Amino acid sequence: MAGPVDGLPPLVDHHCHGVLRHEPDAGTFASYLTESDRPPAAGTTFFDTQTGFAVRRWCPPLLDLPAHCPPADYLARRRALGPDETRRRLLRAAGIGAYLLDTGLPGDLTGPGETAAAGGGTGHEVVRLETLAERTAAGFRAAAGRAAGTADAGEFTEVLAGAVAHAARTAVAFKSVAAYRHGLALDPTPPADDAVRDAVRGWLAAGAPRLTDPVLLRHLIALAVATGRPLQLHTGFGDPDLRLDHADPALLTGLARTTAGTGTDLVLLHCYPYHRQAAYLASVFPHVYADVGLTLTHTGPRATAVLAEFLELAPFGKLLFSTDAYGLPELYAVGAALFRTALAGVLGEWTASGAWSAADARRVGAMIAAENARRVYRLPAGED
Amino acid sequence: MAGPVDGLPPLVDHHCHGVLRHEPDAGTFASYLTESDRPPAAGTTFFDTQTGFAVRRWCPPLLDLPAHCPPADYLARRRALGPDETRRRLLRAAGIGAYLLDTGLPGDLTGPGETAAAGGGTGHEVVRLETLAERTAAGFRAAAGRAAGTADAGEFTEVLAGAVAHAARTAVAFKSVAAYRHGLALDPTPPADDAVRDAVRGWLAAGAPRLTDPVLLRHLIALAVATGRPLQLHTGFGDPDLRLDHADPALLTGLARTTAGTGTDLVLLHCYPYHRQAAYLASVFPHVYADVGLTLTHTGPRATAVLAEFLELAPFGKLLFSTDAYGLPELYAVGAALFRTALAGVLGEWTASGAWSAADARRVGAMIAAENARRVYRLPAGED
Amino acid sequence: MAGPVDGLPPLVDHHCHGVLRHEPDAGTFASYLTESDRPPAAGTTFFDTQTGFAVRRWCPPLLDLPAHCPPADYLARRRALGPDETRRRLLRAAGIGAYLLDTGLPGDLTGPGETAAAGGGTGHEVVRLETLAERTAAGFRAAAGRAAGTADAGEFTEVLAGAVAHAARTAVAFKSVAAYRHGLALDPTPPADDAVRDAVRGWLAAGAPRLTDPVLLRHLIALAVATGRPLQLHTGFGDPDLRLDHADPALLTGLARTTAGTGTDLVLLHCYPYHRQAAYLASVFPHVYADVGLTLTHTGPRATAVLAEFLELAPFGKLLFSTDAYGLPELYAVGAALFRTALAGVLGEWTASGAWSAADARRVGAMIAAENARRVYRLPAGED
Repeated sequence: MAGPVDGLPPLVDHHCHGVLRHEPDAGTFASYLTESDRPPAAGTTFFDTQTGFAVRRWCPPLLDLPAHCPPADYLARRRALGPDETRRRLLRAAGIGAYLLDTGLPGDLTGPGETAAAGGGTGHEVVRLETLAERTAAGFRAAAGRAAGTADAGEFTEVLAGAVAHAARTAVAFKSVAAYRHGLALDPTPPADDAVRDAVRGWLAAGAPRLTDPVLLRHLIALAVATGRPLQLHTGFGDPDLRLDHADPALLTGLARTTAGTGTDLVLLHCYPYHRQAAYLASVFPHVYADVGLTLTHTGPRATAVLAEFLELAPFGKLLFSTDAYGLPELYAVGAALFRTALAGVLGEWTASGAWSAADARRVGAMIAAENARRVYRLPAGED
Repeated sequence: MAGPVDGLPPLVDHHCHGVLRHEPDAGTFASYLTESDRPPAAGTTFFDTQTGFAVRRWCPPLLDLPAHCPPADYLARRRALGPDETRRRLLRAAGIGAYLLDTGLPGDLTGPGETAAAGGGTGHEVVRLETLAERTAAGFRAAAGRAAGTADAGEFTEVLAGAVAHAARTAVAFKSVAAYRHGLALDPTPPADDAVRDAVRGWLAAGAPRLTDPVLLRHLIALAVATGRPLQLHTGFGDPDLRLDHADPALLTGLARTTAGTGTDLVLLHCYPYHRQAAYLASVFPHVYADVGLTLTHTGPRATAVLAEFLELAPFGKLLFSTDAYGLPELYAVGAALFRTALAGVLGEWTASGAWSAADARRVGAMIAAENARRVYRLPAGED
Repeated sequence: MAGPVDGLPPLVDHHCHGVLRHEPDAGTFASYLTESDRPPAAGTTFFDTQTGFAVRRWCPPLLDLPAHCPPADYLARRRALGPDETRRRLLRAAGIGAYLLDTGLPGDLTGPGETAAAGGGTGHEVVRLETLAERTAAGFRAAAGRAAGTADAGEFTEVLAGAVAHAARTAVAFKSVAAYRHGLALDPTPPADDAVRDAVRGWLAAGAPRLTDPVLLRHLIALAVATGRPLQLHTGFGDPDLRLDHADPALLTGLARTTAGTGTDLVLLHCYPYHRQAAYLASVFPHVYADVGLTLTHTGPRATAVLAEFLELAPFGKLLFSTDAYGLPELYAVGAALFRTALAGVLGEWTASGAWSAADARRVGAMIAAENARRVYRLPAGED
């Protein structure tokens, strides 16, 4: 009998990142298995995590090794194959038809087209607002050839608005990492023009460092919302820069209210351990969506239970698959495999008990895997 | 072998609402499947939710259709049977012996006796404090025939106290929706008399609009607590008027402390996704209880897991069944069916593993289904 | 085939308390089944909780009675055996090799060596900071023979620092209950010297009552961190003194940042219902650990699910077993039995599905059961 994920369409990975172009050493490889930016505790290794175990489960067979082989064997085989062949094998196995790739992270990483080419799909860009602002400021200051002064604040504000509008022509979405930069307890209304100019002036005068000013973070969100492109928002867990309880998506309730009716969708990324809160917001605000990525990748065999928790309140048309893969092509393979496993687990259990019909289960599986994202990001239906 | 829910007594639904007296159109029907007061997102339907799927699982067979039939077929059959026969069939199937019905919602809805008559049980009234205050103010202002002035504040305060005392003679409980009107981060002490009069004066002068003044919300709670009737408090998820994290029942810790020893019980409604917090409060405060309703109805096949989470810390004498059904008799049928399924699931698993004895499981099932509520609300043991 | 917990080493119980030296009466016995310090609700008993049911499942067979026998039978048998034999049987069954015992609770309780002797392991002391300060103040005031004045503040501050340093010579860890005394939203930086002296002066002048001053709580944490001994911090649920949401371990993010690089480890105790938050902190900060005790004891057959939730984000080298047993030797037997059952459940399921290898499962089981604690608390490897 066909299972609920047989016949699933190619996945739409609506939030991911580039992978390293070159072979990482063992320490670099392990550092991508965790959201931490710090070394492992003495006596421990990042391989001893659900992500590490999931990589060892799913990836060695794709490189002709037995599942759960020791990390050293896996890394040796990876080196022998080289980064291009490794990437090709791991990405092909993921079965992803469209990659919506956030290009705002540093490093020698593959871009949207390059990633998609290796995986056999199409690539699309997601523009990270804070990175766009920082890059625009760097260019503006270099062009001005001097520290930006009072007169420049208004000019830069226009340049920045132009940069967001320009990006919206080709990007499929914007992304905000305000959760990292300030926390999500932001005033949900756009800041006044003069407040923006004052904040811009202060930021430029300070040399346009890492953007953390809440006025500017709110202004970027307002600029993005005005474009009509879906806005992805980091919520929930991440690296230790973030204060977890300040990343609770419930803190975005005000933004959900002020953006209702604008025609712009908000997509809550990651969400964990507040995924039930995110699902609630997706259930009561028509323009709010939630994402299961990252969370499934990091929870291994618990991905099934966590996906089930998402599916308590989230309407089935409001949940989106992603991998949030970053740096390692392994994270694409693992994210896709855990998603398929988790989806098969929950849908299989619910159809077996009679709670859901098999036809409904197949339909909902396809919605979460690809169709919801195609609708939200206005991707062509059959092209990818 | 008898399962753990065989022989369960008729349920006591300690928190529910009336159902529509007339046949709803398709859009109206769907709008009752969600807590949202907004339209579904473009390309989605409220039928594609756990509540929608649960209705399609449990209700068509009660109307002579196959489970999981298309919504249009179901609605057509419902129309053919008419609202009275539909209501009768769905309510009878729920197996509810006592309905404790909150009469504070607007609409052409069945009352406690009318609902109970259709279902074959007895009806009791739960009085919603904020609605009582608003209705009392409307009557007071109409009788005064003018905008209420300074002198009226003291008078209205007395009228309001009388209205609460009067309601306590027949109502089995009061209910507060302070979570919607202000959030639960309220000062847990009763406001001073002059603060109440000032707030009353301001509210009457403004035309007694939707009651959101925290002083008046606290005053209503204090009036209700003074009657000795159990006080139901909305906590956790609901419609988007509510800010979810401001409805965390942990915010009621102060109220639990200040009402300890008054002899009045507090019943935390819904609770999700903070049901573990609610269970904790029920475990440490003798007069605090928690409710599994609404949450089970909205989580479909996940109701088993959610009930299990409630049953981690909640003492077994502190958990109460409800449906929180509103508008559609389907929500009574679904709420009761999911409760029985979830209860059979958790108790069955725990007895099968040897963690619980079968006798204890049956005893605890009856407590949650009916006995705890009969004790808390002082309902006659065998009458309903 | 050997299961994943066969061959588990003797457990290291890294956080526990003494047990009553004398036979408790029925009411006293029941009061230790709950974290509440209040009586049960009318019509209920603390035996009707997961802890009560777990005691009835695991302990009667150790005293020659059938599992799930009535509480009265169990208590009668317990009296017949006497407290020493009861303690010996229940502790031996727990299979604990090392007891790290918090000596800061009042009552006629067994000490670390006494507890360990009954159980057949070794005992170690965990010093509760607030109790140490209160006891030191009582001794200081008695020695001074008068109410402490201005001149004494500096002197007491030195005496207190000496007491902490002295305790660090023999204790394996310190413990803070700031969650109970103030909540965890404390300024994460050590207070300035003059602020400490002012706070000491005020506290001594008031007669050194229960220590709740946030400056002194922070100062105690700073003194403990300076010793290099691991610092255990109460987080999550406990008795109703505590406001649950103020005990969310996410509130310790600031302390995790300010203590990074000091060489001192932080161990988050209990954590529930914020155990996913605790696991997150353990995943991003190398020196942060999380504890599964208390939580497993109080959740009965749900311990398996709760342990699984811990194991979503927590690196496997960062999770520690404990019982948090207090007062009753039953809580040692139950805590250890539920831990073994839960561990066998999660590891068994994950190896059966192929998600984990059997060798990894055994290795991770031993880490959580004993090895992580031996490393963190620098216990000898084979001695206990």
